[in-house]
Amino acid sequence: MVKLFKQETTTVGVEADVTSSRGCPAAAQAPDVSGALISGVPVSAPLVLSIDAMGGDRGPAAVLDGIALARRKYPDLHFLVHGPEADVAPLVKARRLKSCVTIRHATGVVTMHDKPAAVMRGGKDTSMWSTIDAVRDGAAQVAVSCGNTGALMAVSMLRLRKMPGVNRPAIAAFWPCKNPSGFNIMLDMGADVKAEARDLLTYALMGSSYARNALGLDRPRVGLLNVGTEEHKGHAELKIAAEMIGAMETAGGYEFVGFVEGNDLPGSRVDVIVTDGFTGNVALKTGEGTAKFAGELMREAFTSSLLSKLGALLASGALKRLKAKIDPRRVNGGVFLGLNGTVIKSHGGADATGVAAAIDLAARLAGLGFAERLAARVALASANGQDAASAEAGIENAK
Amino acid sequence: MVKLFKQETTTVGVEADVTSSRGCPAAAQAPDVSGALISGVPVSAPLVLSIDAMGGDRGPAAVLDGIALARRKYPDLHFLVHGPEADVAPLVKARRLKSCVTIRHATGVVTMHDKPAAVMRGGKDTSMWSTIDAVRDGAAQVAVSCGNTGALMAVSMLRLRKMPGVNRPAIAAFWPCKNPSGFNIMLDMGADVKAEARDLLTYALMGSSYARNALGLDRPRVGLLNVGTEEHKGHAELKIAAEMIGAMETAGGYEFVGFVEGNDLPGSRVDVIVTDGFTGNVALKTGEGTAKFAGELMREAFTSSLLSKLGALLASGALKRLKAKIDPRRVNGGVFLGLNGTVIKSHGGADATGVAAAIDLAARLAGLGFAERLAARVALASANGQDAASAEAGIENAK
Repeated sequence: MVKLFKQETTTVGVEADVTSSRGCPAAAQAPDVSGALISGVPVSAPLVLSIDAMGGDRGPAAVLDGIALARRKYPDLHFLVHGPEADVAPLVKARRLKSCVTIRHATGVVTMHDKPAAVMRGGKDTSMWSTIDAVRDGAAQVAVSCGNTGALMAVSMLRLRKMPGVNRPAIAAFWPCKNPSGFNIMLDMGADVKAEARDLLTYALMGSSYARNALGLDRPRVGLLNVGTEEHKGHAELKIAAEMIGAMETAGGYEFVGFVEGNDLPGSRVDVIVTDGFTGNVALKTGEGTAKFAGELMREAFTSSLLSKLGALLASGALKRLKAKIDPRRVNGGVFLGLNGTVIKSHGGADATGVAAAIDLAARLAGLGFAERLAARVALASANGQDAASAEAGIENAK
Repeated sequence: MVKLFKQETTTVGVEADVTSSRGCPAAAQAPDVSGALISGVPVSAPLVLSIDAMGGDRGPAAVLDGIALARRKYPDLHFLVHGPEADVAPLVKARRLKSCVTIRHATGVVTMHDKPAAVMRGGKDTSMWSTIDAVRDGAAQVAVSCGNTGALMAVSMLRLRKMPGVNRPAIAAFWPCKNPSGFNIMLDMGADVKAEARDLLTYALMGSSYARNALGLDRPRVGLLNVGTEEHKGHAELKIAAEMIGAMETAGGYEFVGFVEGNDLPGSRVDVIVTDGFTGNVALKTGEGTAKFAGELMREAFTSSLLSKLGALLASGALKRLKAKIDPRRVNGGVFLGLNGTVIKSHGGADATGVAAAIDLAARLAGLGFAERLAARVALASANGQDAASAEAGIENAK
């Protein structure tokens, strides 16, 4: 088993490291929609994405609008679109997408209220299930869905299965911060409410692999979320996790900065923030809620008097640029890490711009062969730490 | 034991309910500094506060400045100020505070880097220890310190001991939100990284008692923080806690709204948010960090061009009002709940305005006899739920 892992590493792993840090510098612009990224990436086969047309709050029209928008940037992409043919076909026709879209008929729709267990039992006929199966069968490289997160994770786990060496898969998302790229990556955002020390180590490995590929970072800085940066604070489990993550620095290809706190999330200390899915989800929603609240207070202030309205008018250019910069639709897409295949969860309320951003992320990850790179990195680290470190040293020297 | 609890309730409990909801409506303005609140409250003895002059980032001068500021609003308050006499006496003299300040000499100072366990063992000579002991000995009603949170909680636990019926004390803090008062209360903010279901129930009882007294709410709405509002989501422990908190609604004098999420924190759905100290601390720091980041981006936008600078100038009045409204110094003060005595933890970096806000909160809680009210409420609920409910029904009818 260990030998197999190491064999995989020497083929895929080297390529991954070299390409992400050198061959594809444009990846540093990851959260921007950019068609230029596809050129020069290792996978030369035609890229096919599997898109769930149903389950989003705005229905299939918004999803097809997103495809139309993304297509302008990626004219060579092909889309497998899953949903009831009667609903989807007219939308495809109206947007003249026939040449790049193949409809996969599926009658069932997973709603936001469906329980994950129920979908796992009786969801075979749904567009969500069909979307994941296209990746499972190799018909598409990456799946995208705006549907129910819990159900999407459950179906993905069931159909794609966990990657060897992964106990708990995780959801990773971009977090706006003061880093040069404008973002860091946080995981787990809520795939599992629990995480043991070894799961947190896996998150560190997967998160840094994602940061290398999606943010174009050579050696991402990893931090473990805690209630203080001192060693004597926090759960016992976190202290064990910190030791494990620290010991795997070389094999994992990251720098471990130790414990970080909630106020480091929007800062510039780290590229990858590791935490359990309960804490990650609360932090995500607290951050989103606070940002929204701050925006509302600001809007209130600027409409409170004639003078402030005039001020807002004069500053409107700067405010528009700021709004575009922090537009959450630009970084739409939580990625499921740790499965045999890449699945992107778009925000349920995503409009065309949001869906296009999720598709852009999917196209880039598909183009980079991210699923294989991630598997190679996890396998490398899952092997005996000592052996892995030596193997990694060999890779670095070969560069 | 049960009988004793019920006896306490019929004397202190009734008073608490009637006064907080009727006799003292001004308490609804809680987070504002206001001297008017002291009049009409049940405690008629002279109010004495115990203030730790040391341990804050800005040293004893900022603390004495805060006392001077608070004194203008509360001319009848008396302060026991703890610290090295040689440092404190000149500061008292320079501010002409001799008539309202008694210095309690203490040579030792707890720094931000001292470990709680070390302070518990060898901190007897510190100003922090002396500050807490004044409440323990009945010389003062409420203690205030800007020092090391972990050490302050440890010393408070050791010297004041836990209130009967409380397993884990908690830190409660105001959270800016869309409620009419502008705030809700969240706990635990980090007293303990763990909380079992029964601890979360205690937090609900203590948090709602605090909301009744500090925010002047008759029947606070309590929510339990989770990663989804659906019943099937979250830890098993949280489901048990939700049942326990729901069952204690009547005896606790609150309305249980069920699970809430991170984005409800700045909303208007709840008055009290219950969570464990790990999650609460991460949420607090994430919210603070996000708000600060949003402010920085805004400042950047307004200084990016000549036109936007002019716009900011025109809107400066509105922006100043907004800044004052969300000024974190105005709501400075985390309260330790569940001890035999009230302790307020001021922010370590508090300036005179921040210290004055913490003193204002201390004065109001002392004036309301909050420690006794809280103990009565916890005792009432700690008694058999059924009995307690009947007792409560009697109280309501007697109103």
